[in-house]
Amino acid sequence: MVVLGIDPGLERIGFAAVRKVGSRLEPLGYGLIETPRVALPTRLLLLEEAMTETIDRFSPDALATERLLFAVNKRTAMDVSKALGVILLAGAKSGLQWSEYSPPEIKLAVVGNGAADKHQVQFMVTRLLGLAETPKPDDVSDALAIAICHAMHSPLVAVAGG
Amino acid sequence: MVVLGIDPGLERIGFAAVRKVGSRLEPLGYGLIETPRVALPTRLLLLEEAMTETIDRFSPDALATERLLFAVNKRTAMDVSKALGVILLAGAKSGLQWSEYSPPEIKLAVVGNGAADKHQVQFMVTRLLGLAETPKPDDVSDALAIAICHAMHSPLVAVAGG
Repeated sequence: MVVLGIDPGLERIGFAAVRKVGSRLEPLGYGLIETPRVALPTRLLLLEEAMTETIDRFSPDALATERLLFAVNKRTAMDVSKALGVILLAGAKSGLQWSEYSPPEIKLAVVGNGAADKHQVQFMVTRLLGLAETPKPDDVSDALAIAICHAMHSPLVAVAGG
Repeated sequence: MVVLGIDPGLERIGFAAVRKVGSRLEPLGYGLIETPRVALPTRLLLLEEAMTETIDRFSPDALATERLLFAVNKRTAMDVSKALGVILLAGAKSGLQWSEYSPPEIKLAVVGNGAADKHQVQFMVTRLLGLAETPKPDDVSDALAIAICHAMHSPLVAVAGG
C-alpha cells in the first residue's frame, strides 16, 4: 500500500509518498508544492495541477491529511481550508481513500506520545524511514509523519476512509 | 455582461446568473445546488461537476461570491471554505474573473444601505429584476443580490478581478 501524506497549505504544501510492505515503511518521494502569489482562483488551479501530477507520480492508494486547527489565524485557516478543498478534490478524482488525523494522533503514531515535540517527531520520521538526515523544511517532515501515521493505522482506516 | 453570483455553502449553494444590458438587469436563471451527505471528497467532486454545468449553462463573464464571515460556527466556516475553494477552482477553469463582496457591500449596492435587513434586500432584488415574486430559499435570493452587486460595480471590477 502507498500512502500520500499531505501537510495542507496555500503557499507551501508538504507531500510525502510512503510504501508499506509488511511492517516496513519505505519512502518513495517527498517534497514541497509551492504556489505563486497570483489571484486566488489561479493559485488553486495551479495547486490542483501540482496535486494531480504528484498523485500520478506515486500512484498512491490513500490520501492522508493533517486536520486543521482553529487556533491559528482565522484568515489563514480559511485560506488553507480553500486549498484543502482543492487537495481533497484532486484525491477524489483519482479515487483515493481519504483519512484525516489530528496533530496528537500523528505524534502518538510516530513517537508513541501524543504530546511529543517537533524534534522528537522529526527524529522518529528519519529513523523509521532509514533516512540519512531529517527532511527539510518542516512541511515535508510533517507530511512524512502524516503518511507514517496513516500507514500504521491502515488496517483500521481501510474501513473509515472515503 | 453576464455575472454568476454564488452564495457559498457545502450543503446548499445558491446560484444566480444575471445579464447586464446597459443599465438594465435581466435574470437568466437561478436556483440551488445541493450536495448529498456523502464523504467530503466525493461531495466536493459533485460540487465541482454541478458548478461546471452551471457555468456551461449560462456562459458568464464573471464570478461573484459573498465573503465568508468568521462570526459563524468555526467548523462550518472551515467546511464552507473547502467548498469555496472548489467553486473558485471551477471558475478559474472557465477563465472567469472573480470578485468577492462583504454582506454590507452587497446590501449597499442593492438597497443603498449597508445595514439593510434581509427583507429589504429581497424586496429590491425582486423589484430590480422585475420578478413576480421573491425567489426562495434565502440562498437563492442572496445569490441574486451578489450578482446584482457585481453587475452594479462592474466598471470598477473589470480591473480588480482575477
